[in-house]
Amino acid sequence: METVSENACFGGVQGVYTHASKATSCDMTFGLFLPPQMKDGKVPVLWYLSGLTCTHENAMTKAGAQTWAAEVGMAVVFPDTSPRGEGVADDEAYDLGQGAGFYVNATQDPWAAHFQMWDYVTEDLPSAITDAFPVDADRQAITGHSMGGHGALTIAIAMPARFASVSAFSPICNPTGSDWGQKQLNAYLGREEAGWRAHDSSLMMKESGFDGPVLVDTGTDDQFIELLRPETLSEAMAACRQQGAFRMQPGYDHSYFFVASFMEEHVAFHAEALGLI
Amino acid sequence: METVSENACFGGVQGVYTHASKATSCDMTFGLFLPPQMKDGKVPVLWYLSGLTCTHENAMTKAGAQTWAAEVGMAVVFPDTSPRGEGVADDEAYDLGQGAGFYVNATQDPWAAHFQMWDYVTEDLPSAITDAFPVDADRQAITGHSMGGHGALTIAIAMPARFASVSAFSPICNPTGSDWGQKQLNAYLGREEAGWRAHDSSLMMKESGFDGPVLVDTGTDDQFIELLRPETLSEAMAACRQQGAFRMQPGYDHSYFFVASFMEEHVAFHAEALGLI
Repeated sequence: METVSENACFGGVQGVYTHASKATSCDMTFGLFLPPQMKDGKVPVLWYLSGLTCTHENAMTKAGAQTWAAEVGMAVVFPDTSPRGEGVADDEAYDLGQGAGFYVNATQDPWAAHFQMWDYVTEDLPSAITDAFPVDADRQAITGHSMGGHGALTIAIAMPARFASVSAFSPICNPTGSDWGQKQLNAYLGREEAGWRAHDSSLMMKESGFDGPVLVDTGTDDQFIELLRPETLSEAMAACRQQGAFRMQPGYDHSYFFVASFMEEHVAFHAEALGLI
Repeated sequence: METVSENACFGGVQGVYTHASKATSCDMTFGLFLPPQMKDGKVPVLWYLSGLTCTHENAMTKAGAQTWAAEVGMAVVFPDTSPRGEGVADDEAYDLGQGAGFYVNATQDPWAAHFQMWDYVTEDLPSAITDAFPVDADRQAITGHSMGGHGALTIAIAMPARFASVSAFSPICNPTGSDWGQKQLNAYLGREEAGWRAHDSSLMMKESGFDGPVLVDTGTDDQFIELLRPETLSEAMAACRQQGAFRMQPGYDHSYFFVASFMEEHVAFHAEALGLI
């Protein structure tokens, strides 16, 4: 693992690192915030999965998570949203290929060679991080924004034993029923829609729920709200009697100004589930 | 005045606007955060002046000021750091010309035509803002980072009646004695060093002090610390018995991670001076 940068931040360290990933067969870059409490031993960790077009950097610089994570003593991981580099397939559209991994393991060409983002985020990066940093694999929570909210919800529902809690900011809730989803699932996983069900949080929620608490925030003025389809997840959560809250926040849009505005509450939500407060 | 964007943010609005400036003879873009308390009438205003290479956008997205400004009920203005656009002089170096106005009124060619940033920040933009938004011209404070810290300190010391308080993050403290200063003051103001004294916060501080409280933070690991010359301002503040604090923060560097880490304290400092807390 190579250190790209380390900056003192709220009494802890905001680092950026690269490492060779087996899953994606290329070098991957991620951000990791370690709070000041790391000096006293292993700290719990919050995963923050980012949205379309983002790298590891956007949320790391704009979401304000470190402010609150430092207060409660929580590490925050900011993975990239796709494999990148020469030899990695791409598409001209902003919502396919590099910057748009959708947190699935691609089975189709030309994507299958590198686009294994489910395995990267659930296997490769977790072991790389727990090997190298004082984070506690037994105390994890997960969140994300937009495509990353989709990733957080689907991964948490598939791995309830790993995550104490899951939250999302303006998540893509129903990719099998939206242009933010159908196009990508078709490209990465092929036409067989049965395989898509394992990557649709509304369908997964309805089928199994999530063992811990769930918090979802979406802005009423989100410019992409028709693509997000919040109503499907909201309905699914209520239908399966899911512990948690699905909130519509008046006047907010899809931007990081929205994410930052509610970050304190999301960090507190996870901190409570992890027994930190 | 034209609205570029408005996003809901911490219960208030983060806006970006453009307007024609008489001082700089070109269109200027600025960010303005209005806190939720604007609904109840005029709010006090904190000026945030940015550093070299920045536009209005960097601090607006990365410094986390809105979090705390919303809590105390303070507007925050994020001006650009120079005139821009076709017909505006520039230089290949990152630290001269566009993005590097140094908060002075240039008297030399080719800069004099547009680089009137002192007048822009102290005259044009204040009247544009008080005309169009519910901000209270009688309750103002000022801060900034690096070149913007230099701007904040020199403007506040020159206009003590306007600003209740001044603070700075890793300011350029002594431009007349540094490569971050001599080059620019020479280019913008000419070789006559007597004129430079009105743009050196250490010299100004020593001569007159500032009527209100002063807060300065600089990281001990700041990669530009030799150019900032914090020791000159620290000495000047003590020599003139200036009310305030000059702090060196262990381990922090020059980045926005540093600025964000201490933003809560700076906003609280200004809020107290403005009678908000």
